[in-house]
Amino acid sequence: MILITEDQSAEIVTPELAFAAMREAFIAAVSPSAAIFPVVLGHGSDPQNRFTVKSAAGAELAGLKVGAYFPTNDDRGLPRHASTILLIDQSTGRISALVEGSAANCYRTAAADEVATDALARSDAEVLTLFGTGHQAAYEARAISRIRNLARVLVVGRDAGRTSDFVAKLRQSGLPAKAEDAETAVRAADIIVTVTTATAPLFKEEWVQPGTHISSMGSDATGKQELPPALFTQARLFCDLPEQSLRIGEFQHAADAQLTAIGSVLNGNARGRERDRDITIFDSSGISLQDLHMAQAILSHFTESDKNQC
Amino acid sequence: MILITEDQSAEIVTPELAFAAMREAFIAAVSPSAAIFPVVLGHGSDPQNRFTVKSAAGAELAGLKVGAYFPTNDDRGLPRHASTILLIDQSTGRISALVEGSAANCYRTAAADEVATDALARSDAEVLTLFGTGHQAAYEARAISRIRNLARVLVVGRDAGRTSDFVAKLRQSGLPAKAEDAETAVRAADIIVTVTTATAPLFKEEWVQPGTHISSMGSDATGKQELPPALFTQARLFCDLPEQSLRIGEFQHAADAQLTAIGSVLNGNARGRERDRDITIFDSSGISLQDLHMAQAILSHFTESDKNQC
Repeated sequence: MILITEDQSAEIVTPELAFAAMREAFIAAVSPSAAIFPVVLGHGSDPQNRFTVKSAAGAELAGLKVGAYFPTNDDRGLPRHASTILLIDQSTGRISALVEGSAANCYRTAAADEVATDALARSDAEVLTLFGTGHQAAYEARAISRIRNLARVLVVGRDAGRTSDFVAKLRQSGLPAKAEDAETAVRAADIIVTVTTATAPLFKEEWVQPGTHISSMGSDATGKQELPPALFTQARLFCDLPEQSLRIGEFQHAADAQLTAIGSVLNGNARGRERDRDITIFDSSGISLQDLHMAQAILSHFTESDKNQC
Repeated sequence: MILITEDQSAEIVTPELAFAAMREAFIAAVSPSAAIFPVVLGHGSDPQNRFTVKSAAGAELAGLKVGAYFPTNDDRGLPRHASTILLIDQSTGRISALVEGSAANCYRTAAADEVATDALARSDAEVLTLFGTGHQAAYEARAISRIRNLARVLVVGRDAGRTSDFVAKLRQSGLPAKAEDAETAVRAADIIVTVTTATAPLFKEEWVQPGTHISSMGSDATGKQELPPALFTQARLFCDLPEQSLRIGEFQHAADAQLTAIGSVLNGNARGRERDRDITIFDSSGISLQDLHMAQAILSHFTESDKNQC
């Protein structure tokens, strides 16, 4: 089996690699052979330290991701999150590769947003409104800036000091960012990305202008909520995996929502945005096939001599 | 992280190592901090190739086993089963070790039987009756021969040719084996071990003599069954994990069974066999803590210089 360490995967991963992998993953998710298996919610010896196991199979790949969330790491300055992906050799059943992918995981999630937004947002979109000022939010802003010429990035945060620091960080990386209040930012937005742990809507539906695209990146568990449900009846609704999105994603708050898998838009079997004035919503609850395709893409970028062949 | 390959783990594992690890695992399973998480039943791109993910946490260890079952391997002479264990570092959340343990898995299951039988069978037991002639059955016979002086090993199989081959194999390894019919073998038994994929009782309850110990090793899924349920009201009932044993183990066929976790016998909190004439039954449905303790024991036996430190 092949082991790719965190240092190796962090060095090889790029936004371009992640974009291509997410596109493949979304298309794989709508293939007839795709299967997503139930998520395990585990914990460590100290029950506040948690881990999840998310597994899936597609036409070419099968395997799983172990995602750890260890808040006790704070005490020692270590990151709370750690992601490890295992690929199962489809010809023998043995583990063919282990990819440590904590840094890669940030690119993965941002690239999922990027692929969906690229497919759904107006081509002339130039104002990005970002809810959230955490670690992942910066990846999202940079990802969207790759696919649209952004004139402004409006950042809405709960804490003024954190928001100011975050805006400064985005500006340093070349993005035209500024802090803004929620109503002004939503009314001005062509694209809204929410990257929060919210459990109630972050803005009001009447602020959203025709033609806006919204990506909800934060809702991946029961009780989480970022968007006003009244918006769902006026908008066209997309997601990574409809059954999961309705159960634990943003659309858990939508009764009878008609959801389209983004993979069906990407492979040409469903329509994305049809008119400039459409409001489109993409909900990312995160699926294991994304991890498997990230791992496969990282593996493919290693030459044989780089591999720790064991 | 540390990688232990299949060749390395197969070289280090011994019946003694497995026995000590299973004893630790059973005791860990009854500690207040033990948690067994739901089993994932997954499959590969070809749905006939299946895998399971079994995860758990104890006072010291947390992690998971990926167990693959690939019948398509038959075509190329590869083993159907492959087991890989991941340990999660309890101080950081990162994967601390990956142990390929397909060979080790056979020792693990046999040692579970051995630990329970050692605790529950009469000390003068000398006749072992074995139902099953598969790969695992040979491990079970050798394991029981380590803890009791066996005068006879009576083998009951469905196919005369296979049974004869299996008996010859046991005899070659020094065991006093012979083929026998079910009734004769059960009536003569001090210890009965069932290692089959049966879905109906393998023998009649009235054949079982007072003082017999029975280990059911084969029932680990809904619909599997090896023992006559009428026996349960006359016997004292033990298992690895009561809630799992009642759900998918042999005791799925027992209404209102009073089960004792074998770990509680091993740590002195519950009684095992009380009288020579007791009939005792141990059901092994298999728990992830066994795998984690096997992996930890294998790791402990490697010196630092042997490790593939990455």
